[in-house]
Amino acid sequence: MIKKVDHIGIAVRDLEEAIKIWESLGLKVEEIEEVPDQKVRTAIFHAGETRIELLEGTTEDSPVSKFVEKRGEGIHHIALGVDNIEEHLQKLKENGFRLIDVTPRIGVGGAKIAFVHPKSVGGVLLELCEREE
Amino acid sequence: MIKKVDHIGIAVRDLEEAIKIWESLGLKVEEIEEVPDQKVRTAIFHAGETRIELLEGTTEDSPVSKFVEKRGEGIHHIALGVDNIEEHLQKLKENGFRLIDVTPRIGVGGAKIAFVHPKSVGGVLLELCEREE
Repeated sequence: MIKKVDHIGIAVRDLEEAIKIWESLGLKVEEIEEVPDQKVRTAIFHAGETRIELLEGTTEDSPVSKFVEKRGEGIHHIALGVDNIEEHLQKLKENGFRLIDVTPRIGVGGAKIAFVHPKSVGGVLLELCEREE
Repeated sequence: MIKKVDHIGIAVRDLEEAIKIWESLGLKVEEIEEVPDQKVRTAIFHAGETRIELLEGTTEDSPVSKFVEKRGEGIHHIALGVDNIEEHLQKLKENGFRLIDVTPRIGVGGAKIAFVHPKSVGGVLLELCEREE
């Protein structure tokens, strides 16, 4: 079951500059974390039940760096919070969605995550995310 | 005060096709509404406290049609729910943000809304939204 929008990932060039912008908008940075597996540094803000994650690529071949190079800074992906990610992935597979991650891996904050290809979601890079709360 | 992510706006070419995709992901369309002021037809889904709004431009000069023409389908904007939009806009203005709407107008579902220019939010088209609940 889809419970909520877990987070919105926003690709930025310079994490410290971006943090200033979002704090200036009225949010407060909660934590800064590096996720070597995804080659990103991330700053996390909370807005209600949803997290806003600013993402800075840490290497040139990081998917986030490539996104910024190609399309500029901006919204990178949205993540839906689900209660049983394996079951949900299986259902999406049966429904013909193209999965980037067929089995979940560990993302920011230790959540189980899996990406669905934007080609099958009308141009939206979609993540499923299961988090212990 | 920022209360939550009120909604995520997603630009689509064909609303009926896009509804099928998002229903197939496990969400349920709640309503379909036309907003002549913004030249869009929108389909609304609920994911927790956040709405996902699929947006189809109704005219060639609709901002959503132009977005799709230029960048393809995908995430168009995010909207933060606030409790006093006039006060929040004033604060953003003082903080140097470039406002598209200096005073709020009426958006989908009768909410008071105002857009902030992506140039001042690191490439993110940001909306503020005040809704009676």
